[in-house]
Amino acid sequence: MARSRVPRRGAGGAGRSASAGTFTLEDVAAAVGGRVVGRGARLTGVAPLESAGPSDLSWIADERRAPDGARSAAAAFLVPAESLAAGRPCVVVASPSLALAVWLEARRPPERPARGVARGAHVHRTARVSRGVSIEAGATVAAGARIGSRTRLRAGAFVGEGASIGEDCVLGPGAAVLAGCRVGDRCILHSGAVVGSDGFGYVWDGERHRKIPQVGIARLEDDVEIGANAAVDRATLGETVVGRGTKIDNLVQIGHNVVIGEHSILCGQAGVGGSSRLGRGVTLAGQVGISDHVTIGDGAVLTGQAGIARRGRVPAGVVVSGMPALPHREFLKRAALVGRLEAAFERLAALEEAVAKMRKGG
Amino acid sequence: MARSRVPRRGAGGAGRSASAGTFTLEDVAAAVGGRVVGRGARLTGVAPLESAGPSDLSWIADERRAPDGARSAAAAFLVPAESLAAGRPCVVVASPSLALAVWLEARRPPERPARGVARGAHVHRTARVSRGVSIEAGATVAAGARIGSRTRLRAGAFVGEGASIGEDCVLGPGAAVLAGCRVGDRCILHSGAVVGSDGFGYVWDGERHRKIPQVGIARLEDDVEIGANAAVDRATLGETVVGRGTKIDNLVQIGHNVVIGEHSILCGQAGVGGSSRLGRGVTLAGQVGISDHVTIGDGAVLTGQAGIARRGRVPAGVVVSGMPALPHREFLKRAALVGRLEAAFERLAALEEAVAKMRKGG
Amino acid sequence: MARSRVPRRGAGGAGRSASAGTFTLEDVAAAVGGRVVGRGARLTGVAPLESAGPSDLSWIADERRAPDGARSAAAAFLVPAESLAAGRPCVVVASPSLALAVWLEARRPPERPARGVARGAHVHRTARVSRGVSIEAGATVAAGARIGSRTRLRAGAFVGEGASIGEDCVLGPGAAVLAGCRVGDRCILHSGAVVGSDGFGYVWDGERHRKIPQVGIARLEDDVEIGANAAVDRATLGETVVGRGTKIDNLVQIGHNVVIGEHSILCGQAGVGGSSRLGRGVTLAGQVGISDHVTIGDGAVLTGQAGIARRGRVPAGVVVSGMPALPHREFLKRAALVGRLEAAFERLAALEEAVAKMRKGG
Repeated sequence: MARSRVPRRGAGGAGRSASAGTFTLEDVAAAVGGRVVGRGARLTGVAPLESAGPSDLSWIADERRAPDGARSAAAAFLVPAESLAAGRPCVVVASPSLALAVWLEARRPPERPARGVARGAHVHRTARVSRGVSIEAGATVAAGARIGSRTRLRAGAFVGEGASIGEDCVLGPGAAVLAGCRVGDRCILHSGAVVGSDGFGYVWDGERHRKIPQVGIARLEDDVEIGANAAVDRATLGETVVGRGTKIDNLVQIGHNVVIGEHSILCGQAGVGGSSRLGRGVTLAGQVGISDHVTIGDGAVLTGQAGIARRGRVPAGVVVSGMPALPHREFLKRAALVGRLEAAFERLAALEEAVAKMRKGG
Repeated sequence: MARSRVPRRGAGGAGRSASAGTFTLEDVAAAVGGRVVGRGARLTGVAPLESAGPSDLSWIADERRAPDGARSAAAAFLVPAESLAAGRPCVVVASPSLALAVWLEARRPPERPARGVARGAHVHRTARVSRGVSIEAGATVAAGARIGSRTRLRAGAFVGEGASIGEDCVLGPGAAVLAGCRVGDRCILHSGAVVGSDGFGYVWDGERHRKIPQVGIARLEDDVEIGANAAVDRATLGETVVGRGTKIDNLVQIGHNVVIGEHSILCGQAGVGGSSRLGRGVTLAGQVGISDHVTIGDGAVLTGQAGIARRGRVPAGVVVSGMPALPHREFLKRAALVGRLEAAFERLAALEEAVAKMRKGG
Repeated sequence: MARSRVPRRGAGGAGRSASAGTFTLEDVAAAVGGRVVGRGARLTGVAPLESAGPSDLSWIADERRAPDGARSAAAAFLVPAESLAAGRPCVVVASPSLALAVWLEARRPPERPARGVARGAHVHRTARVSRGVSIEAGATVAAGARIGSRTRLRAGAFVGEGASIGEDCVLGPGAAVLAGCRVGDRCILHSGAVVGSDGFGYVWDGERHRKIPQVGIARLEDDVEIGANAAVDRATLGETVVGRGTKIDNLVQIGHNVVIGEHSILCGQAGVGGSSRLGRGVTLAGQVGISDHVTIGDGAVLTGQAGIARRGRVPAGVVVSGMPALPHREFLKRAALVGRLEAAFERLAALEEAVAKMRKGG
């Protein structure tokens, strides 16, 4: 039911891969650097174990998935060890998940966007646009902005005054990079993502919240991805920074002056308050809330909905959960202890009665 | 103060309803299928009990609202039983809330969008556009996309390559349905809603998070509504599915390969992680967080901010709260027990003292 | 590293401030109303203590920051008292933070957007547009809408049928104010903000969730700011209201018929359910969740991720935390008590053993 053909976007006859879109295990092994075991018929698609059909390639990530593999209708597998394939044809690789990524990438028909600036795009005469860009109708490039080579601006994308976008980027429909902000190479901004919105800074002047001008910028290093409708605020002064290779999911909020290290992962609806610093390789699961002026060490993992209060610190490498956040084991232990409270109150009452009786009885 | 006229959008003289926009209880009863009790003057508007004025219709949902009804200035009521109207004119119906919906719908002036493709809309020559559509200036329909009859694309709406939108849909300003995705009939996508953004899938290749190409699609069945700035990711492989009649509120996040059953309700800022499955008639209250690979049974209710961890299961029909989520009664009980802890610690200390004394004293 | 020049947006030679963008403490004192102590060289920028360089002005908010001031490389400070400047030149003011805001505003080069309606903007012939507006290519003003003097609509901004926007407002790229809604003077809507999306109202009719037409409006009073990708729903009937001077951060959700008082602060990803009422000067920290029909008193503060259940009430002036929310001290106390549970269970077991022994032993 949920089976899936690798979609063929190009109409083109001259496919890059085997005829009629089919492929063999040898094609896969060549692309992903693996070893073929057994002999398969021609394959037509890639699908998860549960939904794969008899002409699909699937993958078995590790031993725990082997029983699902045995039950699957898939024709062949990517496996970390031959023994997990249950006798079916397979390609043995170090990491089936990585091989899957490589193979899907190899199979993907190349996108061939219309190059150049479409009629109906609004590109200011002072903007500098490099070779090979694709700027669709309805996209805007404001005064003094720069767009790097082969970068693609979908309809409704917006690049503000003096902003710069690197090479090989994609700004999805309605994505916005506001005035003065900088985006590195190979970045992807999904639909509705906003980079460089004003930080949320006010000072009470006795009568009203007076806006503190947000005159800094937001800067994305290379290979950053920003999810749909996520927002990265510009700094009050200086820069908000998202480090190289960091991936940010949909609807995430990054406050002003935040600095995020390289290769971190921020899952859907996580939020990071102003001036907080996240290290390298940090993971924020969904809906995690980081207050302002917080420090998160390299490689720390915050599980779903965890919350860190203002000026809090999470050491490198730990896993924390809950609000207020605790080391994950401690979080689980406390939850279990709370689950025993009702019985504990009964034991306490029984003890009180026993002691009272003993005192009276003597 | 918060009184409200049913707004008259059309400038048009020839109103569909009574003269000068007024109406009678008989008009209401005919539209909603109820029984008139008493005789009212001409009514001019509809308003909640608290803000209704002396020419307004209001509604009393059930017995608990009867005292508010008695205090209200409303001229007449929709009621489930004559006795709740406190002697004022009323229309007796099985469900006043449903009757309200029907009546507001009946009163609403029909929208008459300009049909056709406006100048300034960007419709690819290979797109297929059915009769009666309204595609505003600034909307985009990419190559190979299909737009069903009478569907309306507001300014800045985007329909990607090969995507298809059914009949009688509305895509609000800036709403986007990305390449290959499918939207059924009578769907509403509010401003900034995104359907088909990439799933959040990476695999660490030793040096960086390598993107797993997201080559599946997102599919909305008929009668689905997606709130402002909500996001529904496309599947890695296969489909992300939102079932028929399911309603999704603003700023909700739906991960890749999620499958949501029919007639579910997902309130504001709820999030559902990758590959999770929600049954039919599920309710997620605001800010609920569902991790990935979770299963939620039919009719389950998750109260506000409840959280379900990875691979968790919520049985059909239960109500759960908190993080980690518990049956709602258990959640309340534990919270109450924790509230008694301070006293319990004192009792424990007193017992220890008493026992120590007994041991010493003999 | 994170040092920052006040950016110079205008290319213009004739700067408003000192030559080559430099300035003196006398300039600062004149602008912010302070007293100069010491004599400084010419300054070139403004930066926080940690990143300021030897030609930067910085600020010391209060005594606790004095040690950071002493360590800073800044040339001069804004201080509340001369003694905090550690002998360096300074400007003494009542509130350094306020002075910072005033000075940054004074230094900011005036934005000089192109006035008028750009070619490529879609302004309906029945719309009324006041003098001095700036409506960029790709912006839409629908039938019957009104745009006040000097208001700026960036590319992709949308003003719906009959909506009205006051004077001196800015609608960022892709911001939308939908049909009939009203925005006061000096409001800022950041990129992707949506005002007037449908409230989330349905009634089950036995077969499906039937939509309750949302025929009210949303109204923003003067000086309101709405963050990127935030959403304010229109009322079912009547109005959703955001009071004068209230500031709403990115990705916040405001449900239908909510009324928010003046000068409140709603931080990132907070959510407010339908028909809730927030007083004046309320603070919702990040990710706070307010259910529907809740009442929050004037000046109340809800800390990050706090949750208030349906029909809950938070009294004026209190600080609450957690879900279910408790007074902040009580929240902290309970968390601490839960942290002592493991030891308490041991004490309980020891007591049981002691009592059992005493009973047996006699």
